[in-house]
Amino acid sequence: MIAQEERKLGKVFYPESIAVIGASADEQAERLEGWCGRLQHFGYKGRLYPVNPRASHILGLQAYASILDVPEPVDFAIITVRASLVLGLLIECVAKGVKLVHVYSGGFADSGNDEDKRLQQDLADALKGSATRLIGPNCLGLYCPASGLSFSHEFSRVPGPVAIVSQTGSALVRFVSLACSRSIHFSKVISYGNSVDIDSPELLEYLADDPESKCIMVYIEGVKDGRRFLNALAKCTEKKPVIVLKAGFTEGGARAISSHTASLVGSQHVWQAVFKQTNAIYVETFDEALNQLVALRYLVPPVGRRVGIVGLGGGHGVVTTDLCEKEGLQVLFFTERTTQSLKKMAGLAVGRGVRNPAEMGLGTSGLYKDFANGLRLVASDENVDFLLIQLYPEGYVRHWAGGNQMEEAMDVIINTAKELPKPVVMVIGLGYEIDIMGVTLDAQKRCLQAGLPVFSTPEDAVKAVGKLMNYYDNRTNAAAP
Amino acid sequence: MIAQEERKLGKVFYPESIAVIGASADEQAERLEGWCGRLQHFGYKGRLYPVNPRASHILGLQAYASILDVPEPVDFAIITVRASLVLGLLIECVAKGVKLVHVYSGGFADSGNDEDKRLQQDLADALKGSATRLIGPNCLGLYCPASGLSFSHEFSRVPGPVAIVSQTGSALVRFVSLACSRSIHFSKVISYGNSVDIDSPELLEYLADDPESKCIMVYIEGVKDGRRFLNALAKCTEKKPVIVLKAGFTEGGARAISSHTASLVGSQHVWQAVFKQTNAIYVETFDEALNQLVALRYLVPPVGRRVGIVGLGGGHGVVTTDLCEKEGLQVLFFTERTTQSLKKMAGLAVGRGVRNPAEMGLGTSGLYKDFANGLRLVASDENVDFLLIQLYPEGYVRHWAGGNQMEEAMDVIINTAKELPKPVVMVIGLGYEIDIMGVTLDAQKRCLQAGLPVFSTPEDAVKAVGKLMNYYDNRTNAAAP
Repeated sequence: MIAQEERKLGKVFYPESIAVIGASADEQAERLEGWCGRLQHFGYKGRLYPVNPRASHILGLQAYASILDVPEPVDFAIITVRASLVLGLLIECVAKGVKLVHVYSGGFADSGNDEDKRLQQDLADALKGSATRLIGPNCLGLYCPASGLSFSHEFSRVPGPVAIVSQTGSALVRFVSLACSRSIHFSKVISYGNSVDIDSPELLEYLADDPESKCIMVYIEGVKDGRRFLNALAKCTEKKPVIVLKAGFTEGGARAISSHTASLVGSQHVWQAVFKQTNAIYVETFDEALNQLVALRYLVPPVGRRVGIVGLGGGHGVVTTDLCEKEGLQVLFFTERTTQSLKKMAGLAVGRGVRNPAEMGLGTSGLYKDFANGLRLVASDENVDFLLIQLYPEGYVRHWAGGNQMEEAMDVIINTAKELPKPVVMVIGLGYEIDIMGVTLDAQKRCLQAGLPVFSTPEDAVKAVGKLMNYYDNRTNAAAP
Repeated sequence: MIAQEERKLGKVFYPESIAVIGASADEQAERLEGWCGRLQHFGYKGRLYPVNPRASHILGLQAYASILDVPEPVDFAIITVRASLVLGLLIECVAKGVKLVHVYSGGFADSGNDEDKRLQQDLADALKGSATRLIGPNCLGLYCPASGLSFSHEFSRVPGPVAIVSQTGSALVRFVSLACSRSIHFSKVISYGNSVDIDSPELLEYLADDPESKCIMVYIEGVKDGRRFLNALAKCTEKKPVIVLKAGFTEGGARAISSHTASLVGSQHVWQAVFKQTNAIYVETFDEALNQLVALRYLVPPVGRRVGIVGLGGGHGVVTTDLCEKEGLQVLFFTERTTQSLKKMAGLAVGRGVRNPAEMGLGTSGLYKDFANGLRLVASDENVDFLLIQLYPEGYVRHWAGGNQMEEAMDVIINTAKELPKPVVMVIGLGYEIDIMGVTLDAQKRCLQAGLPVFSTPEDAVKAVGKLMNYYDNRTNAAAP
């Protein structure tokens, strides 16, 4: 009998040695597409053992015919061969005493065939009575930049405070790349696939206590043990914010899941109750999850929901106001004092909005000289808890009165935001021309470097901020006596 | 008494002469920011008369102290002076027999002051008994590329089939620019502001019969005569699709409108009934309006709502499926025949989705050789009415196995789409790195050139397509006996 303690997750994220079972003897292929190539490229510092009966060396490493031939202990094994061969190799891993096996291969329960489902059950049976743990099959496994593990050549090597637990893999590759581009970095990203052994509840329980993970994003299609998942989620949300992308609430989505991870999706009604009970932040798309992470990581929590909108006014300001209020934020008129002061501002033309939204930004002869002062006025208004500043670089980049004024606008905003008494949320629109996009991306990166949350549309911004305010409020209410 | 006929809109969009009342004597300012400069830059071919009592010539044009001094008839006058001076100048325009006056200046009812409201009423009174029509005050006026009219230096000179009637101006500048970047071009764009004379119903009535305008986008904050607006909208929607962005359904939105165009916003309940009754396509943001225009202009109407999803699969495919079904589209399993054929496709690895979504696109060694064939298989499936192809260029641009394969992917898609029996909707994701964005933009432009509707996210795509399907269905139902 194996003690539960030995089977606990923990050190598995920091393996001292890795065997790649099914490393290719074609070195070019292995370098570009194989796990040995990927781990070398990513800078894994531990011992690496390619396992392939038809090679003596792969990418400068001694290769072995079987994991049983590896002369030293193996902490972590990645099995990347076709489904029918996996069981025998897993049995060898168990015999070798490997702590964690990642079965990359798909073609088990996910194929939908009864035979493949039985094969998956055989994998589970092979683990019985051992301390060997299994992640997968049909998954990408682990990305842990601090320990040099990665399932993509392209990921950032910079560690960060965000953990991901995900039932899907392919979407994760893009998600993690986009997140890194937006200065969101990761502690542990786990794609667990068909979860024959390690499943989402255990991962959540582990991450709840993981000091490296300050917030968690979960992509889930279905769970096997609803009660255990709920408890694990609740354990997490007690300690840190959790964003949940639950897929399959529609009939078609459930069908798609049956041919992806073959999970039981559960009813939307039950899941919504789970989100409410645990104060998990529910999102519907990967894009929304990413925006939510940006809000979570970069927005200093405002004391209330009252927004002061600054920037492009007119109909655009009205539409943004509608968006804010639909997401549970409030756009009140500024106090008379603020309105009068804004009206007196040099450069604020007659007819420009001064009551919230405040129509400021780019004047007919460039950036308003009083822009910083306008920001201070809005931020000190007693009907405002935080600022939403909207910039659309078209006017700044192509302004006929003289060149790209976006850098100047960003200097003013970043320097002023530092001294404002209230948090700032930025919207910098992307547009559809490459010169504008370049300027926007640079400006967005400057915001993140300065600690300002930034989004590409007001819709993205207010959705993320609204949900974050709900999260903070529910947490406060729960903590109250 | 002036006959109604004389007051009708029509030729006003093709003025043979324009007076700019308030043209600046500072030629540099006038060239860069003034209406004379703008019209010259935009290539207006008619006669242009700057009116300024303190200049003899402006930008090479003879200037006049008053419009009454202009020796020839003036079709169109733009008044661009401070509010308090407008009334006197408008009276002179009436005396001159100008057909259309555009009052650019704000600071009337939009300021919220009683005095300014009275001043606006004075403008209305000045028109009484004359054939002179007024657009504004507080608006950008007309963009009509076919006649050389524009309220931005930057707009495209290419005419197209889309008309806009908008109560806001500033947001329009960005909207029109973005639209042109996405190959949406315009017949007539009208920013009508406080609508002291020409108002949305009359503009809609005109556009309903305008052969140059094949579809119409309306931005509206409120209307003065609900019945007349409803009738005008119904007249339009009988003849061509109309997209309506109605702002101010929230409390804050209504407040923001009170300080923008001072309109009465109307209840959401009533407006929703109007949209339903007229089959107008209701949208909530400018971004959504733009996506809707792309769908309207580029999507060949599918015969049904059943989507065949091709591209990034796994969790991403599930989420896209959910999005489709939330918008009233359907994602059914392919027939067994299609699934078996997809399974046999060279390059489709075990575990990849073959039942809808079809997980195809980029394989481990580049674009699947059978990609075109996969598209044909999906398009000929009897459970599919149209294809949604999702590409995320990260993998194509940075693919470790060898360089940018996006061009090849686009060649295959565009060439194959031409011969497919069913319409194709494209999603090409933007990402957050400039090299990816450049590739994405090029690919998106290629799609539009090839007549394929393209969007940056699956959410944008299915929302626009779902609403368009509703529009077509309601139209069909209305036409049925």
